[in-house]
Amino acid sequence: MLPTIEWKGDAVAMIDQRKLPAAEVYVTCRTAAEVARAIKSMVIRGAPAIGVAAAMGIALGMKRSRATGTKQCAAEFQKACDLMAATRPTAVNLFWAIERMKRTFADAAQAGASVTEIAQRLEAEALRIHDEDVASCRAMGGYGATLVPESATILTHCNAGALATAGYGTALGVIRAAVEQGKRIAVLADETRPFLQGARLTAWELVKDGIDTTVITDNMAAAMMRQGGVDLVVVGADRIAANGDVANKIGTYGVAVLAREHGIPFYVAAPLSTIDLATPDGSRIPIEERDAREVTHVGSARLTPGGARVRNPAFDVTPAKYVTAIVTERGIARPPYEESLAALVAGPAAPESSAPRGPAYVRRAGPA
Amino acid sequence: MLPTIEWKGDAVAMIDQRKLPAAEVYVTCRTAAEVARAIKSMVIRGAPAIGVAAAMGIALGMKRSRATGTKQCAAEFQKACDLMAATRPTAVNLFWAIERMKRTFADAAQAGASVTEIAQRLEAEALRIHDEDVASCRAMGGYGATLVPESATILTHCNAGALATAGYGTALGVIRAAVEQGKRIAVLADETRPFLQGARLTAWELVKDGIDTTVITDNMAAAMMRQGGVDLVVVGADRIAANGDVANKIGTYGVAVLAREHGIPFYVAAPLSTIDLATPDGSRIPIEERDAREVTHVGSARLTPGGARVRNPAFDVTPAKYVTAIVTERGIARPPYEESLAALVAGPAAPESSAPRGPAYVRRAGPA
Repeated sequence: MLPTIEWKGDAVAMIDQRKLPAAEVYVTCRTAAEVARAIKSMVIRGAPAIGVAAAMGIALGMKRSRATGTKQCAAEFQKACDLMAATRPTAVNLFWAIERMKRTFADAAQAGASVTEIAQRLEAEALRIHDEDVASCRAMGGYGATLVPESATILTHCNAGALATAGYGTALGVIRAAVEQGKRIAVLADETRPFLQGARLTAWELVKDGIDTTVITDNMAAAMMRQGGVDLVVVGADRIAANGDVANKIGTYGVAVLAREHGIPFYVAAPLSTIDLATPDGSRIPIEERDAREVTHVGSARLTPGGARVRNPAFDVTPAKYVTAIVTERGIARPPYEESLAALVAGPAAPESSAPRGPAYVRRAGPA
Repeated sequence: MLPTIEWKGDAVAMIDQRKLPAAEVYVTCRTAAEVARAIKSMVIRGAPAIGVAAAMGIALGMKRSRATGTKQCAAEFQKACDLMAATRPTAVNLFWAIERMKRTFADAAQAGASVTEIAQRLEAEALRIHDEDVASCRAMGGYGATLVPESATILTHCNAGALATAGYGTALGVIRAAVEQGKRIAVLADETRPFLQGARLTAWELVKDGIDTTVITDNMAAAMMRQGGVDLVVVGADRIAANGDVANKIGTYGVAVLAREHGIPFYVAAPLSTIDLATPDGSRIPIEERDAREVTHVGSARLTPGGARVRNPAFDVTPAKYVTAIVTERGIARPPYEESLAALVAGPAAPESSAPRGPAYVRRAGPA
């Protein structure tokens, strides 16, 4: 398992995703502010991983707190939560993780826990969020693999892998599970400009796992589909609205349109923490615009001339109508998503204790 | 006018398009082989510019020839033509230009011209091809501008500009003509991985002309269209088959599908020399696969890990059904293209001596 992020007791360690695949360097964050900076600068990225990092950052901040009373403790806790909330606006897992930490804090405070006990409970909750994320990815993989034929070329965009989660991955978890089942899988990885998560991160972790991986520039996907070279698409998500609209890495929407044009299934794999029932549709999802330099430069090479404007929206929204199915750790949602997503979020876990082995076991929420 | 390529009497000078926009460096080719290398390595690129370069390269080779008899002269000429033909397979303008040079040679030889006279005629023909290309771009611009509203944001892919032609440009010629008519034009330039012709070349020449230009990564085009930020698309072409299928820079096909999905007109601007009536449809157009390094590296930065495969098709084919109209120097072709393209290629020039001013003047071949 790749060590995307690790709790070190008095610090949080992360592999620096800005430097992969050229260098495997670890960043050690010793304060909540350092964790927040790591999220903002994309040392760590990927919606589920951001959630885990934020929880660990808050836990770290409170563990190192010198607060002597509950009032000071509460103020420092709120400050740590605000720090995390200000890092990146689109991935809802960040806010979901902060909410979980807030509930833990409130429960502990209400139970009259001491400052030290509160910090211990927050640490335990952050570790739980981490471990649950790995388990979710495994379960998602099990469900998702049922959608994958015995032999398939799978196109993916950005990195929804071990590096985007606490481990195993969402979209890449589906691919890993299919490979583990003995299916013959080849992966086409969109390079995913501007940050190149596909070329740098997806290719790196799949090659490490011995999975046949071909990197293409984003603009090659259409031609590959037209030539019959793509059997299905699977991507992750940063936020899924109640109606099934999916915010994900910029370029996902284009891939979804192209998939539909070519009759190729387009799947989204994401934990329930990515589903935001409070957001009715994609138009309400805030889209982060990042620094122009990510587009104008690659390494030290400047690509654009002075005087040219640049846009850099980090995400786009894929309307639900382009999404064939959404794979979660509790089962697979199909349209209409208003019903199927709400049922998955509300519902009890699938009767199976672990991920199913075949399509017959797939729990399909909503009308069949 | 940008000096894309210039005949220097005893050499051919070109601006090195691999180095723009960081550096404006000129390459001087003193032999036919040097011109061929410049085409192959993309010192110069763009279908019409490649045609001009090939013609000049052949003329240069023959001017510097020390052949004493017509037999030796013919052998050297054939060798120069073969050299050029082996550079790049997709752009048909290359083969069209070689054919023109071959006809010139044959006519001169038949007329009993001396070795020196043959070289002079070849030089004159190469210069004619150059000058005609500029005139074609201007005429294309006039026709194409009639398709552009008074105020428009135009998306373009790759570089079909002054740098891709002897000057003014095909797709960018349409944009320049619209700007010259006082229309309020903003341009969205796809960066066009892997060679980045959009970010590097299109942005560079449009900014030089004071045209409002925004560079986006290729995968942002879909989101821009969905947000209503694109009024029309105009691109160039490397080869247009008899049925209207268009080979152009990789990624063009995806843009065309997205344009249709969003109800946005998708125009192709190309000289008649790009129309290849001998190729019935796009499936017969050879697609060049270039070196993987163009994808794996940008400058000195390596993007992909070792062990990952890479694809690098330089072009794709857009089926005619996605093409709203094709703008040539003789008028605008509309579907069905089998008829309209054949009529434009065969037909006399439009009655106007220069490009028209309004839609009423546009000659539309085929059924209206």
